[in-house]
Amino acid sequence: MKVKGDTRERIIQTAAYLFQLQGYHATGLNQIIKESRSPRGSVYYHFPNGKEELAIEAVKYTGRSIEEQIKESMAQILDPVEAIQHFIGVTASQFNDPENVEGIPVGLLASETALISEPLRCTCVKVFKSWANVFAKKLIQHGFEHEEAEQLGITINSMIEGGIMFSLAHKDKQPLLLISKQIPVIVQKKG
Amino acid sequence: MKVKGDTRERIIQTAAYLFQLQGYHATGLNQIIKESRSPRGSVYYHFPNGKEELAIEAVKYTGRSIEEQIKESMAQILDPVEAIQHFIGVTASQFNDPENVEGIPVGLLASETALISEPLRCTCVKVFKSWANVFAKKLIQHGFEHEEAEQLGITINSMIEGGIMFSLAHKDKQPLLLISKQIPVIVQKKG
Repeated sequence: MKVKGDTRERIIQTAAYLFQLQGYHATGLNQIIKESRSPRGSVYYHFPNGKEELAIEAVKYTGRSIEEQIKESMAQILDPVEAIQHFIGVTASQFNDPENVEGIPVGLLASETALISEPLRCTCVKVFKSWANVFAKKLIQHGFEHEEAEQLGITINSMIEGGIMFSLAHKDKQPLLLISKQIPVIVQKKG
Repeated sequence: MKVKGDTRERIIQTAAYLFQLQGYHATGLNQIIKESRSPRGSVYYHFPNGKEELAIEAVKYTGRSIEEQIKESMAQILDPVEAIQHFIGVTASQFNDPENVEGIPVGLLASETALISEPLRCTCVKVFKSWANVFAKKLIQHGFEHEEAEQLGITINSMIEGGIMFSLAHKDKQPLLLISKQIPVIVQKKG
C-alpha cells in the first residue's frame, strides 16, 4: 500500500485499505492508528465521532478514486462499449494481486452496514450513484435517452460490483471478464 | 426468523440469520448461543472448530435453500428467460423486509473472508457454482451449448449478487429489477 499526503489523508488511506482487506467490523481504530503510524490523538482529533466517521471518509475517498478511473476510461476511448470494457479490464487486471483491489470496500462496507448505519449506507449509495452517472453521461453523449442511460448506468454498476465480488471469491478475474463480454449485448449502439 | 428442527440445525439457522444481518466479524459465538437458546456445550459439541466451522455450515445451509428456490422457479416455468426472471422477482420481493433477505450471507461472507479463510472461501465458491449450474442446466435443456450455458450461468449469478447488494444498499428492489430486465437481452432464445 502506498500512503502519501498529510496526517488526515494518511489515516483515511490506511482505513480504506484495511476496510478493503478485512471489512468494517474486523477493523479497529487501534489497528488504523498503528498502521497509519499516526499519533493516537490525531485520529481522535480528525475523526471525533470514531470509526463510523472514518469509514464514511474512507468510502468517499475510494469513491472519488474509482470515479476518476471510470472518467479516465470514458475520456480515453470514444466508443462507450469499448470505454466501459476498458474500465472493467483495468479492474480485472487488479485480481493478479487480490489484496490490492481498490473499490471493494464500498461494496463490502455497504453490505456489512446497510442495516446498521444510515449515514454509512447513504454515503455508499451516493458513491454508487456518482459512478453510475459517469457511465450514463457517456451513453447520453452517444445518443441514448436520459432514462435509458440512467438505468443502464445502474445496471452496469451493479453487474461490475457482482463481478468484483465473484472474482474476489474465486480469486480469478474470469467472472469480471464474463461481465465485460455482456457490455456490447446490453449496450446496443445508437444511430 | 423461523427456527425449527434439532439443536444442531437450530444453531446453524440462527448463525445464518445473524451472519446475514451483521456479517461474519460482527457475529460472535456468544450471540449465536444466546439467540439460538442452545446450551453453550452443545455449540462446542457440534462445532468443535468454532465460528469458522459454523460459518461454513451456515453458508452450506443457505446455499441449499437458495438452490431449492432456483430449482423451483426453473421447474415451475418452461421458458428459461421467464423462469430466471421469476426467481429474481421472488428475491426482489424480499426487499420489502430487508432484514429477512436470504442469500445475502453468502455474498457478504465471501467478500469478508475471501482473503482470510480458505475453507470458507471455497465453501462460498462451491455454493455459487451450485446456483450457476441450475441456471446452466435449464439453458442446456433449451438448446444452449454447454460452454455458453455455463458462462451465462456464472454471468447471471454474479449479476443477481450485484443486484442484491445494490438493492440492499439502496433499500429498494429497483437495481434487482433492472438486472431482471436484462435477462431476455443476454439470454437470446435458441431455435
